[in-house]
Amino acid sequence: MLMSQSAMPVPTRKVQVDLANRSYDILIGPGLIEAAGGEIAARRPGARCAIVADETVAGLHLKRLEASLAAAGLAATRFLVAPGEASKSFAVFERVVEALINARIERGDLVVALGGGVVGDLTGFAAAVVRRGVDFVQVPTTLLAQVDSSVGGKTGINSAHGKNLIGAFHQPVLVLADSAALDTLPAREFRAGYAEVAKYGLIDDAAFFSELESNWREVFAGGPARLNAIETSCRAKAAIVGRDERESGERALLNLGHTFGHALEKATGFSQRLLHGEAVAIGMAQAFRFSARLGLCAPSVAARVEDHLAEVGLPTRIQHIQGGVSPVEGLMAAIAQDKKVSRGALTFILARGVGGAFVAKDVDPAAVEAFLKTEAAPA
Amino acid sequence: MLMSQSAMPVPTRKVQVDLANRSYDILIGPGLIEAAGGEIAARRPGARCAIVADETVAGLHLKRLEASLAAAGLAATRFLVAPGEASKSFAVFERVVEALINARIERGDLVVALGGGVVGDLTGFAAAVVRRGVDFVQVPTTLLAQVDSSVGGKTGINSAHGKNLIGAFHQPVLVLADSAALDTLPAREFRAGYAEVAKYGLIDDAAFFSELESNWREVFAGGPARLNAIETSCRAKAAIVGRDERESGERALLNLGHTFGHALEKATGFSQRLLHGEAVAIGMAQAFRFSARLGLCAPSVAARVEDHLAEVGLPTRIQHIQGGVSPVEGLMAAIAQDKKVSRGALTFILARGVGGAFVAKDVDPAAVEAFLKTEAAPA
Repeated sequence: MLMSQSAMPVPTRKVQVDLANRSYDILIGPGLIEAAGGEIAARRPGARCAIVADETVAGLHLKRLEASLAAAGLAATRFLVAPGEASKSFAVFERVVEALINARIERGDLVVALGGGVVGDLTGFAAAVVRRGVDFVQVPTTLLAQVDSSVGGKTGINSAHGKNLIGAFHQPVLVLADSAALDTLPAREFRAGYAEVAKYGLIDDAAFFSELESNWREVFAGGPARLNAIETSCRAKAAIVGRDERESGERALLNLGHTFGHALEKATGFSQRLLHGEAVAIGMAQAFRFSARLGLCAPSVAARVEDHLAEVGLPTRIQHIQGGVSPVEGLMAAIAQDKKVSRGALTFILARGVGGAFVAKDVDPAAVEAFLKTEAAPA
Repeated sequence: MLMSQSAMPVPTRKVQVDLANRSYDILIGPGLIEAAGGEIAARRPGARCAIVADETVAGLHLKRLEASLAAAGLAATRFLVAPGEASKSFAVFERVVEALINARIERGDLVVALGGGVVGDLTGFAAAVVRRGVDFVQVPTTLLAQVDSSVGGKTGINSAHGKNLIGAFHQPVLVLADSAALDTLPAREFRAGYAEVAKYGLIDDAAFFSELESNWREVFAGGPARLNAIETSCRAKAAIVGRDERESGERALLNLGHTFGHALEKATGFSQRLLHGEAVAIGMAQAFRFSARLGLCAPSVAARVEDHLAEVGLPTRIQHIQGGVSPVEGLMAAIAQDKKVSRGALTFILARGVGGAFVAKDVDPAAVEAFLKTEAAPA
């Protein structure tokens, strides 16, 4: 007897992040929220769990996660935060930390981050400092979190002076990327996450970028192409993190588009006017245009990158930001305060081609400013 | 020509903490604040420094430290906090973190903690999270900080639920223990720090404890006996930390006297009524009396420990605390919330004799409560 196609279980993909005694699995597939209890109990039988989620994600997924944990014999408490970047603040961080201590989370227990990048970053950082470090599991529910922020151990909150300036390297013990959760994601958020997927092609995998140019509609539609894209992205990130966990070298490549992007996010007050992935899309297009201006790659390469991002509906220029942004001077100040500054010289990720990104440590601030002036001109 | 004795330089003692690529030196000797610039510049030429100190210590030592850094060509900013345990709060932590970011401390730069345990713990934790970790130097100015808190990388602040429940393991890159700074220390604070010195003898070095029984007056008076005691203490701690940095095993021995001690500090509101070292002195005496009650060591051993601590002027009983403390129930609640709790069973450091401390993981809470009731009775 043949099973109907809809009842065929989709095999879970597994990517390992290889970090000696802190290695961990990323599982990717539909239904992993329902399977979370089993996966966690197999690794930590009887662990007490404390789930942190934002209110929106809690409404969509929390009950199923709690039921799964309960069915696997795992006790769980919950703590909810407001959705949005504003929760990556000292005030919310303090509340999460005290809530975890109040829930008596000890070494051997688990903190579970259910949500997008904000909840993952905030919760991971809280887990890093409660009792000087307790274990945590990432259950990313956005594309951006599944392919980027939940993997690699960067956790943190925002400073009054800039984004992600306060935090810790704290690796999760497990990542459960439930691809079915992406079906509830607003189209704009999925698209923003796609910018980070395309990033892996632009960094060092020209074949993947070409593939995306051909079949991005299938990635957006769901199914195997989407799973492949998530798996390829996680594998790319895991490889880089495995070689350079603390970003002393090549891990900085993952910041492609992020220096310009962070400055734009700051200029728009980390608001819904510009999602992180959208800022990264503009930032990547800028990084390639800046590379072309510096003679590192052909203008046609920059145009190719811009074309693909624009085709999927992502912004690629400052002028695409609703309501505009602060003048060049404000962006420059934000860039100078960015955490990738080293001794006055600016560090940027530039590119010699698609798949040819590299870390440039001695970028002249004057060249950046001149470039931004051309960018600020009406298109 | 002979140098006069007062001009004879006292050789600096050096203890290495052996942690692979995070190994570092502890230098011990008089005049290390004046020598700080040279020692730091030798390791990090041109590093920008941000000094964090409390107002009291700043008045005594900051100018000399700043002059030394300047003479070595190191630029330095400063940030002062109020003296006392209240500065190990989320609010002060946030201010220190934002001040370090505002001072543009980057990777490669140095945060310098000048002061006692509070400033060292607070500053080290801030250094751990600024840009996900920048390097820091400990310049401990109290005996307690020189022999205990500045060594081994435990940093942190206090939670509403208990002491040191929030923090990070973040090793300094250098410890400069200026023994001359101890000359400005109030006698009561020196004595409190001495409790941690005696602790190393009680944990696993009976010969050192015997030596202290004989020559503690010389340790208090200063000179070579004091330097020896600091060096022996740092060496003992460095050895344990080198073998068990993250306290998965024997490092817990360093908590001898600390479970009872923390509960007493909490009961007295972390006030000047009971200094940390005084709480540890009572806690150690209690740990030995509790061990005797459990039949682990002879009552005469507990009496010997109590006698020595009392001889130097340290408190050894709850009744010695000015103004008294909350009843047994309050102490039990504090002990149960202590970070050394594991799955409901209580972990204590107990002893089979002087130098015979061990980690007891399955202590019956009822036995602790019964013991505390005998302790609470009028002496």
